[in-house]
Amino acid sequence: MHPGPRNLITDVPGILVGNAQDAVLKSGTTVLTANKPFTASVHVMGGAPGTRETDLLAPDKSAAKIDALVLSGGSAFGLDACSGVMDGLHDAGRGFPVGPVRVPLVPGAILFDLLNGGDKGWAKNPYRALGRVAFEAAGPDFALGTEGAGTGATTAMLKGGLGSASLVLENGATVGALVAANPLGAVTTPGERHFWAAPFEIGDEFGAIGPDGAAGLGRNLQSRKIAAIQKLGGASLPPERANTTIAIVATDAALSKAQCQRIAIAGHDGIGRAIVPAHTPGDGDLVFAASSGSRQLDTPEQELAQIGHAASLCLTRAIARAIYHARPEPGDLLPCWRPR
Amino acid sequence: MHPGPRNLITDVPGILVGNAQDAVLKSGTTVLTANKPFTASVHVMGGAPGTRETDLLAPDKSAAKIDALVLSGGSAFGLDACSGVMDGLHDAGRGFPVGPVRVPLVPGAILFDLLNGGDKGWAKNPYRALGRVAFEAAGPDFALGTEGAGTGATTAMLKGGLGSASLVLENGATVGALVAANPLGAVTTPGERHFWAAPFEIGDEFGAIGPDGAAGLGRNLQSRKIAAIQKLGGASLPPERANTTIAIVATDAALSKAQCQRIAIAGHDGIGRAIVPAHTPGDGDLVFAASSGSRQLDTPEQELAQIGHAASLCLTRAIARAIYHARPEPGDLLPCWRPR
Repeated sequence: MHPGPRNLITDVPGILVGNAQDAVLKSGTTVLTANKPFTASVHVMGGAPGTRETDLLAPDKSAAKIDALVLSGGSAFGLDACSGVMDGLHDAGRGFPVGPVRVPLVPGAILFDLLNGGDKGWAKNPYRALGRVAFEAAGPDFALGTEGAGTGATTAMLKGGLGSASLVLENGATVGALVAANPLGAVTTPGERHFWAAPFEIGDEFGAIGPDGAAGLGRNLQSRKIAAIQKLGGASLPPERANTTIAIVATDAALSKAQCQRIAIAGHDGIGRAIVPAHTPGDGDLVFAASSGSRQLDTPEQELAQIGHAASLCLTRAIARAIYHARPEPGDLLPCWRPR
Repeated sequence: MHPGPRNLITDVPGILVGNAQDAVLKSGTTVLTANKPFTASVHVMGGAPGTRETDLLAPDKSAAKIDALVLSGGSAFGLDACSGVMDGLHDAGRGFPVGPVRVPLVPGAILFDLLNGGDKGWAKNPYRALGRVAFEAAGPDFALGTEGAGTGATTAMLKGGLGSASLVLENGATVGALVAANPLGAVTTPGERHFWAAPFEIGDEFGAIGPDGAAGLGRNLQSRKIAAIQKLGGASLPPERANTTIAIVATDAALSKAQCQRIAIAGHDGIGRAIVPAHTPGDGDLVFAASSGSRQLDTPEQELAQIGHAASLCLTRAIARAIYHARPEPGDLLPCWRPR
């Protein structure tokens, strides 16, 4: 297994990604779409999810394919980004055909970035417009770090961001991950140099600092984020709720919705390996899995395990890359990994 | 956070564990019970689970407390161990009272160890008797490694086993994990010295070899287990199904069933960090979470995150300890970590 040419989820043939962001708002939206409707499912493991159209992704539900997936900042307000993407799909004549009409199916998930130093005093919810812009921007290339849904993201000790990574498997299938990383937990060991994801880094894709050689880790947790948010929000705010890591893993292997769900489940190990702690009551952690379906599997049982494993590796690396590429902006609450 | 006096799940006040095993069968059973009925839930993430009485553990189901949890070898045959435990509870007059009768509630889960070099030519299913013996043996001390449900366990490259570990939190609560580790994946990096769990090792609880300093790991998977099982079972056997990691995390913190479910979900990160790959279609990976309920929480939202995190750390360490303590026996298919 080796990364694809872009080391992005768009190495999966047919998959397109677009970002939109607002530096003053310190927030944004990321849209994944494809050159035709695609199969997808989801697995939610966090205690505080914010979602839209996720029920139709269950394997027993009738919708066979969807048109786009949305990751957005803005907490529950950010779900409006799905409406903006629907507007774009509607204007393009795309969507699930029901007689003479077409209904775009656009599941989405949000992260909490309402207390991050950005100006949230909007007169009109800005996320519908951000969703539309991100949809129109969708293509094979997109930027990482302080971009799209990762624009306002934070982690326990460092600025968060938008990340992506890919792997080409021995069977020829491509797997990729896309993530907006805004967890309660830390992405580095104490000292903020060594990424938890370091054992899985390929080349210097997130700095090549290597794994921390220490043991006994994980027992003493620090959080600049909780301190910063309590300062903004007051002592009555439960700061544990201001989090969430939302991700998409994708492949060109032809998978059923049920098989996509297994890939989404396996993908969660990528969150657990890159973030400590993960899947807390205050994280809405979830993973969407998408199959563009252009490549048939010869031995589905064996290949499904490999694809799920590759998805977890890509997601772990994508999380570290999100933080690695984050850049400082005016009003930031937390430092970036890079300048340290 | 520091380990409790035994570094076992039985550091949680009131929790008792018993093992029973048969060296010729190369299999066995482990039972967790308590000095009174306890609250519990479960989260199943593997693709090939084998379970009994897990539906009643959902937060919306009526059963408030249960009497015991069973981990067993034997694949679906091993579910009979729950019947043996029920026999023991019945004879002791224990169980959920329904008018004049008492019904013992004993959820359980199994792992696949039917192709491990042991003699499986039984005339009568042996697991009911093993369950009864394990129940009668339950106490505060129990052995790790090639014991109980871990007797016949294997991993990709090394012999598996039964593991446990504990942590005492700053709020005074105790958290512990118990695991029978029989995964498709590996518990060490290539070379079979460095445990994936090494960053989380406390003292020398599993050899103090430290983390592997390499990067780019996880892309080239090897499996002595698949080769050995294909030799035993023939080429038509899907060797990916001969696996499963089953675990229990427990605490004395007073938790609802829904809160137990969140702890079970968080516990799965312990599997993902200690085993690569984990949660595959051929692993029935699941985590039970139990609360003995003797310690009230002051700030449930914050403490629940800490307890879940501690559960994931204990489970990661317990998995490495399972393999660390495994000992060679006649007819083994795989080498042990220790003599290497």
